[in-house]
Amino acid sequence: MKREHVKQMATASNIPSTPDASCPVPLHDYDRILLAHGGGGTLSRKLLMESVFPAIMNEHLSSLHDGAILTIGGTRLAFSTDSYVISPRFFPGGSIGSLAVNGTVNDLAMCGAVPQFLSVGFILEEGFPREELEGIVGDMRSAADASGVQLVTGDTKVVEKGKGDGIFVNTSGIGTVREGIVSDPRRVKPGDVIILSGDIGRHGIAIMSVREELEFGSTIESDCCPLHAVAAAVCGAAPDLKVMRDPTRGGLASALNEIAESACVGMEIDEQKITILEPVHAACEILGFDPLYVANEGKMITIVPPHRASAVVEAMRRLPESSEACAIGTVTVENPGTVVLKTTIGGKRVVDMLSGEQLPRIC
Amino acid sequence: MKREHVKQMATASNIPSTPDASCPVPLHDYDRILLAHGGGGTLSRKLLMESVFPAIMNEHLSSLHDGAILTIGGTRLAFSTDSYVISPRFFPGGSIGSLAVNGTVNDLAMCGAVPQFLSVGFILEEGFPREELEGIVGDMRSAADASGVQLVTGDTKVVEKGKGDGIFVNTSGIGTVREGIVSDPRRVKPGDVIILSGDIGRHGIAIMSVREELEFGSTIESDCCPLHAVAAAVCGAAPDLKVMRDPTRGGLASALNEIAESACVGMEIDEQKITILEPVHAACEILGFDPLYVANEGKMITIVPPHRASAVVEAMRRLPESSEACAIGTVTVENPGTVVLKTTIGGKRVVDMLSGEQLPRIC
Repeated sequence: MKREHVKQMATASNIPSTPDASCPVPLHDYDRILLAHGGGGTLSRKLLMESVFPAIMNEHLSSLHDGAILTIGGTRLAFSTDSYVISPRFFPGGSIGSLAVNGTVNDLAMCGAVPQFLSVGFILEEGFPREELEGIVGDMRSAADASGVQLVTGDTKVVEKGKGDGIFVNTSGIGTVREGIVSDPRRVKPGDVIILSGDIGRHGIAIMSVREELEFGSTIESDCCPLHAVAAAVCGAAPDLKVMRDPTRGGLASALNEIAESACVGMEIDEQKITILEPVHAACEILGFDPLYVANEGKMITIVPPHRASAVVEAMRRLPESSEACAIGTVTVENPGTVVLKTTIGGKRVVDMLSGEQLPRIC
Repeated sequence: MKREHVKQMATASNIPSTPDASCPVPLHDYDRILLAHGGGGTLSRKLLMESVFPAIMNEHLSSLHDGAILTIGGTRLAFSTDSYVISPRFFPGGSIGSLAVNGTVNDLAMCGAVPQFLSVGFILEEGFPREELEGIVGDMRSAADASGVQLVTGDTKVVEKGKGDGIFVNTSGIGTVREGIVSDPRRVKPGDVIILSGDIGRHGIAIMSVREELEFGSTIESDCCPLHAVAAAVCGAAPDLKVMRDPTRGGLASALNEIAESACVGMEIDEQKITILEPVHAACEILGFDPLYVANEGKMITIVPPHRASAVVEAMRRLPESSEACAIGTVTVENPGTVVLKTTIGGKRVVDMLSGEQLPRIC
């Protein structure tokens, strides 16, 4: 990527102040919350580590997973929560409603669970149009039906005009973890194979294009979709899989960095194996984004023992959501905690974790 | 209560437009969300019935409970969610942090469950003070410890300045339902006894006094507290209890009306048996509120078969949170769906459900 050119474009365009990981937000002490604390990168983690975890650390929280695994009555349950504040609320390929269901379904699926039950919490701003609420609820129902989950309990709060932003949605979810599956980054070992379910960067660019009213030739649709079937296929093909993870906020780069750090391993991934659709690539060039850091909402990574890799890729490719699944790299002994990208022109570069915020309110 | 006097005071003071149930908000069609849709009264229910439930109705949602009962792996689980948007965030007797934990603990307890695991979702406004966040998280930890629950998974989002209001907190919770307990308003039958755990109206008045900077002689503290132990005592004394419910938004009157309607029964309650602390009573007079509609955050109602009533009251009185528990009335065949109050001066009046909003953002 011609970074100089990209930087200039980014400055010229009306985009947030932290265009990519090469411009880290300084990790100085903060006394007020920054937008970047919600970006899913190192600043988000700093906030959790310094202001939240010290008070509430326990054995469940310590794995830094998107969901907790609880044993109740002898059954292993996954339990996950996410609030959705995405702006705009409707975008090519989805809405805050479909995203709120798919996002939590995917968190449960990444825990190795069959997603079953969801709660829904709405925070509505006074004056929010009823018709829009009903559209969002309809999208939630369709998304729930598509992944076989039930919306079983809910809550609605209303805040004064100017104290919210239309609608915020929280979904929490419960699912039963599949027999024998343990999806935990700490299980990843050198030699394991990193598999990605498809092309990256579509969700972030779809949101950005609507937000900034940009056109990139054709409409770029978000990849927002449920991953329960893909995860089930992976579990079937590799019951000894190491970890599954959906690279949402912070993108592929941040997800891999988190895993590499948890497991104290290195990773080497191959740029040539990572699919980026041409319009997404072009949009990233114009906007000054590195697609490795752009959010996805319908993609997953899995890391499996080497002897399972081809069976997993094959099983994933049978499903339309992951028909382009591909092994993109391997876990290494070298450079623990670091992800290295073999570039298409034959070089190597370190792919850091996103430090701040690439796109605020992307989910 | 001298209603004329009260009305004048209410008009003179800077309080919301629906001071009590005698001034119902018209139930006309709406095309935009009103603050009153969040009040926990008939308008809240209308919103759910018309805009939410049609799309997502299922057997779990249909009971209109605060929590769903799910059977997973042969174990009955309660699952509940609540978003907290209370203003101010700190108040005499608690904070949004303690409220967010106690509120969901209580919803689970009212389902007959042992509260076990909570998720936490924060929506922070850019610029929110770190110190305040840490105070709130600390309160959550203390509240969790006090009721024996663990905060096991979480999520943090940040929205731009002016698009939120400091902090909103969602908690969702899971607990195992006690063997044999079925807390369901539809089980209530004429002859059953209505028991209230203590004095009413404190939470709402505590919030109002801070919000309006009013002083009522002494500081009125919110009753915000966990009810898991009280609920356990009730379950022990009456395994065949009919229903437990915490009268939060909409107060005692709305909670009883909801149960009367679900069960198609009447209720007669005795004003003399309902404790209202003197400063709360005085504040209600000044503000034009009917204490029957004022929110509580540490009180519960239970309805039990008549032969259990004295044992339940006795068991409750052994605990400090419910040392003033009292049978306040009975379930009747007459006037199904209606709650009648025998007043202290010997008259009777119908106590309707709150229609709109008495106090916005009370929880």
